[in-house]
Amino acid sequence: MSEPLVEVVRADLVEVIHRGDVAVVDSTGTLRASVGDPVGKITYSRSAAKPFQALPLIHTGAADRWHLTAPDLALIAGSHNGEPVHTEQAAALLDKIGCDLSDLICGAHPPLESQAAAALLRGHEEPTTLHNNCSGKHIGMLALAKHLGVDPRGYQTPGHPVQTAILEAISRFSGVRQESVTIGIDGCGVPCFGTSLYSMALAFARLMEPREGSQPYAGSARGIRTAMAAHPYLVAGLGRFDTDLMRAGVDGLVSKGGASGVQCVGLPGGLGLAIKIEDGAMGPPPAPGAVVTIAILEQLGILDPDQVSALAAHGQPILHNVSGQVVGQARPIFELVINQAPATSRV
Amino acid sequence: MSEPLVEVVRADLVEVIHRGDVAVVDSTGTLRASVGDPVGKITYSRSAAKPFQALPLIHTGAADRWHLTAPDLALIAGSHNGEPVHTEQAAALLDKIGCDLSDLICGAHPPLESQAAAALLRGHEEPTTLHNNCSGKHIGMLALAKHLGVDPRGYQTPGHPVQTAILEAISRFSGVRQESVTIGIDGCGVPCFGTSLYSMALAFARLMEPREGSQPYAGSARGIRTAMAAHPYLVAGLGRFDTDLMRAGVDGLVSKGGASGVQCVGLPGGLGLAIKIEDGAMGPPPAPGAVVTIAILEQLGILDPDQVSALAAHGQPILHNVSGQVVGQARPIFELVINQAPATSRV
Repeated sequence: MSEPLVEVVRADLVEVIHRGDVAVVDSTGTLRASVGDPVGKITYSRSAAKPFQALPLIHTGAADRWHLTAPDLALIAGSHNGEPVHTEQAAALLDKIGCDLSDLICGAHPPLESQAAAALLRGHEEPTTLHNNCSGKHIGMLALAKHLGVDPRGYQTPGHPVQTAILEAISRFSGVRQESVTIGIDGCGVPCFGTSLYSMALAFARLMEPREGSQPYAGSARGIRTAMAAHPYLVAGLGRFDTDLMRAGVDGLVSKGGASGVQCVGLPGGLGLAIKIEDGAMGPPPAPGAVVTIAILEQLGILDPDQVSALAAHGQPILHNVSGQVVGQARPIFELVINQAPATSRV
Repeated sequence: MSEPLVEVVRADLVEVIHRGDVAVVDSTGTLRASVGDPVGKITYSRSAAKPFQALPLIHTGAADRWHLTAPDLALIAGSHNGEPVHTEQAAALLDKIGCDLSDLICGAHPPLESQAAAALLRGHEEPTTLHNNCSGKHIGMLALAKHLGVDPRGYQTPGHPVQTAILEAISRFSGVRQESVTIGIDGCGVPCFGTSLYSMALAFARLMEPREGSQPYAGSARGIRTAMAAHPYLVAGLGRFDTDLMRAGVDGLVSKGGASGVQCVGLPGGLGLAIKIEDGAMGPPPAPGAVVTIAILEQLGILDPDQVSALAAHGQPILHNVSGQVVGQARPIFELVINQAPATSRV
């Protein structure tokens, strides 16, 4: 049962409550802490799967073949804002692998970042597939198909060699057999992956410290996590929680959100966090997944008080009305349940 | 305790759950049906208070004094889209009462309707306070202040004669003593009103059929509800649930949503519905308050199957991804608890 995680207060009343579930898992598979039902909560990781969807590029040699740089890999593993820095990187990447816009099936949507979106409208320009927050991931899929020597067309279809390679990576990191991963269609047309929140957190723990089935991907995991940590602006962009958290001062931390209220974090040393907001809220303002993440990292002693203060716009956001007046605040209302007997609790 | 009301399914998984509470109350104060905790759930009605905030205009004679038409009253009681038809009506109304833009304290935000917002950007125009979805309400407050012969400045402050008149109307319709109404600051800077969901539903029942304390406002209530029902496009606009529900074929029905997941409906004969989505979600897509409202009206036999079908975009919305592919659906997952002994259940 999902638990109340965040409340939004206006004057003397709690106006909004966001419920959800949390899993904190280490790379050995031990559930270290939780809220709600980390094992019973089954949901799609959505874009939080992108680091794993990028792994086969390194694992198969496609990244070397196409001379993919760390910025390229950060863009491929990210959900970018569609700012010029993102679309320029995406256009160069598409060119590098010898493809063009007509090869991308993600569809076009306005940039997630409001000023970039407004600039397009003011310039009477239409958004292209490069502005789609998933364009990096799609270009990565094309790069993998061409490297594998298969027809890139249909790269979004389950069973296509690109999707077969990705599902294997998802399975090995999450510890779930391929046939037990629920497949849905994501917002950009490619498969998305349903597992327990526990398995999602385990996948992020293993991204930081590959073990067991994920061990053969050790070099690929290092490549993706270091690219994301080194280029957090390409993973998301202006004002975005993933970018700001990766810049907060925890060396090597990897943060990746997903649609419908998913937020995952990988911590150096092999700890993974996965959060699902039951109602799918993503904000802003506020993004309850960000409020919860910061509260967890504070409760675990990973963020110090200065870092928490620096992230206050995400962690304890003040609500302003149209005129800029303060009218309320969002705040965390849960405590992590720390697993006192980790040796016996492996799931 | 809020109950699960709406689920959003993607392929084989429920990806999102919206919880909430529902009250269905008649004008005598009998709780006729409910979900969750209609009496214990205390929240702000937000913009669902607008019909009541408009009542003093008629009650004091200000509407006659300023020759307010039914379209004017619909705009004043509405949360409009900022389409040209709305801003033109608002501009004419502001002029009619001898005020100008500098008198409005609501602040400017882009039109709620996406094409109207895009048109402003393409034309390199900035939104004005007339585009604020609450501009009608604010102009109504100015009209009341001027009619009362008081300084309009500070019309947003509790204790200003405008707010005193509004709080009296809120109290008389909701059956809550003035000192027991929780006052917050709304998104547009004026007071918003916190009561139980039961009291909110009672207010809408009495808007349709004034009784007891609201009886002296009988003519004012008729004026507001008939203006809204006759001019639903001015209450909201293109694609909006309030507009579409008032056009669905139930004569005289009044629908008014509010921010953070509030949806209220008044039915001819004196029945009021109030819904609060716990997580504040408003969509689209989907707007869980709309899904719940249509399910209630169907369960009560007020909407027939053809009307439910015509409202399917609001009631059982299909989710499409960026490329237009169907990826999921939202649907109601509750049954109204019908009060079997209404005579003894008056709250």
